[in-house]
Amino acid sequence: MDSMVSVKTAAAAKSADIPNAAEALAALAYDDMRRVDALIIARLDSHVELIPELARYLIEAGGKRVRPMITVAAANMVGHTDNAPLKLAAAVEFIHTATLLHDDVVDESGMRRGKVAANLVWGNASSVLVGDFLFARSFSLMVEAGSMKALGVLSGAASTIAEGEVRQLSAVKDIGVSVDTYMQIIDAKTAALFAAAAQVSGIVAGRPADEEAALETYGRELGLAFQLVDDALDYGGASAKLGKSTGDDFREGKVTLPVALAIAAASGEEAGFWTRVIANGEQADGDFDHAIRLINLHGALDATVNQARAHAKRAREALAIFPANKWRTALEDLADFVVERAY
Amino acid sequence: MDSMVSVKTAAAAKSADIPNAAEALAALAYDDMRRVDALIIARLDSHVELIPELARYLIEAGGKRVRPMITVAAANMVGHTDNAPLKLAAAVEFIHTATLLHDDVVDESGMRRGKVAANLVWGNASSVLVGDFLFARSFSLMVEAGSMKALGVLSGAASTIAEGEVRQLSAVKDIGVSVDTYMQIIDAKTAALFAAAAQVSGIVAGRPADEEAALETYGRELGLAFQLVDDALDYGGASAKLGKSTGDDFREGKVTLPVALAIAAASGEEAGFWTRVIANGEQADGDFDHAIRLINLHGALDATVNQARAHAKRAREALAIFPANKWRTALEDLADFVVERAY
Repeated sequence: MDSMVSVKTAAAAKSADIPNAAEALAALAYDDMRRVDALIIARLDSHVELIPELARYLIEAGGKRVRPMITVAAANMVGHTDNAPLKLAAAVEFIHTATLLHDDVVDESGMRRGKVAANLVWGNASSVLVGDFLFARSFSLMVEAGSMKALGVLSGAASTIAEGEVRQLSAVKDIGVSVDTYMQIIDAKTAALFAAAAQVSGIVAGRPADEEAALETYGRELGLAFQLVDDALDYGGASAKLGKSTGDDFREGKVTLPVALAIAAASGEEAGFWTRVIANGEQADGDFDHAIRLINLHGALDATVNQARAHAKRAREALAIFPANKWRTALEDLADFVVERAY
Repeated sequence: MDSMVSVKTAAAAKSADIPNAAEALAALAYDDMRRVDALIIARLDSHVELIPELARYLIEAGGKRVRPMITVAAANMVGHTDNAPLKLAAAVEFIHTATLLHDDVVDESGMRRGKVAANLVWGNASSVLVGDFLFARSFSLMVEAGSMKALGVLSGAASTIAEGEVRQLSAVKDIGVSVDTYMQIIDAKTAALFAAAAQVSGIVAGRPADEEAALETYGRELGLAFQLVDDALDYGGASAKLGKSTGDDFREGKVTLPVALAIAAASGEEAGFWTRVIANGEQADGDFDHAIRLINLHGALDATVNQARAHAKRAREALAIFPANKWRTALEDLADFVVERAY
């Protein structure tokens, strides 16, 4: 899910007018995020050496810690600066990392965050169990944060993520996946955790229901935009730039929006192609390039990025009820950046 | 872990003087356990059909629900009868079921509770994800129970279980596993959840620290006895009766107490046998029977059951600080029964 790192330079280079909002937010949240990192390292600790070893392999590989940064930034935006949001931010990153470890087993992934996936280094069994450990520790962190309501929101998000992943699994190789079904899957597997990451800051800050709902909407819409762009990037993005991280969804037979739209618009011959490569899983050299040609023939990548833009706009608009401050601006810009990285 | 069902008849038949304490407790807790079952079924619900389908396959296969029954019985023993212990009991069963689903993936199991293991029916991916769903839902149930302290105890137990499983994984095929290491592994992978299952009832009942500690000790010692007997039963138990569920640990190269004791007492020739079958994993017809002969030659099964008896005695003694009532008697008898099922 995290291809933000690899594309940020390209996005920044594309237009000097669009600052790299992820880096701007990271700079603003620097001190808080160092404290979140310290919590993460401390709570990874175990007398069973393999656990911190494997977990650090993944966590130190990085990504931009987008989800915990949302928790931290949202708390600052509403003026809440005690320890609870930092603990919830670490809990959010633990949940995310646990799902990555389990996803690698589920997808039989080869690479993760530019490194060989943990399950190939330590085996599936270790990935399952260390994921369980991180999941359990995330709840211990939530207990430390002390809000039963935040615990309810995050445990709800965690079961929704699992539902989304199961549903995605059932949809693999299914060329009949509708746009609605696809949106429901990414809402569950990705947007639910973004939504919870933002909402819990409103909860521990004791903000009124409308502000809590606005934070939830911000996170959800940002998460949808994020996943739509990720799915576009897997086919080279709006500029069709192929990189080492492209083609994973295609190889795994996952019907994401670019493919669902291309299938919906397919001629008879094209439908035969999609049946062979997705439904039957028979893929040969050149098929991925041909898939990209068909996707672009029907404008499906542009349509995907446009969808992402619409969700990012809603994310930005959701923040309008908060007083203007540098944190609000940084979160608004993050929504734009999530889309710009598609280029 | 649950071989209580299959051996209960044999244990009851062995001596008419020892009532089947698990059945007696189940009868006493009948009404509460029906409410726990209703909660379990309700919280398994999901619009993603595979989830209740797979989870019910495992949960309805049964076992005796020993862990949630301990929570329910302990709450009744201290006179606490609101809904919180029922919700925590369901949460405990969900954690246990999630670990079974993940264990099957980790161990590449073929059978579970007398049925083909879920991972062989639906695949490893489904077992991982449905386990995650159950784990998340267990925390939602804890939130409903409303005790932050109980949440802390159960999330701590959950991370301890994962640590124990990772440690057991590292110890597979290691003929150097000491008795101490083995005891630490079963304390983490099994006894921690039994301990938490009992302790949380004391917490939501608002009992003083010494009673809460006594409940924790009862659960822990009972859990150790339970696992020691399970490990003895995998080599036929104290009466060396072989059943369809024997030999799993041997085939997987797990060094449990019967093997650790036999290895510690082994002659040079015997040491060669253990190196071949456990360390090198080279097993042929007749090796399992030979392993049982060597284990019994050194009295290692008797020693294992004697260890279990010592822990069961400590479990029984821990309850002495509570006023005598039918629930205390049932929990005390359960400790004895856990050992008797070895025969």
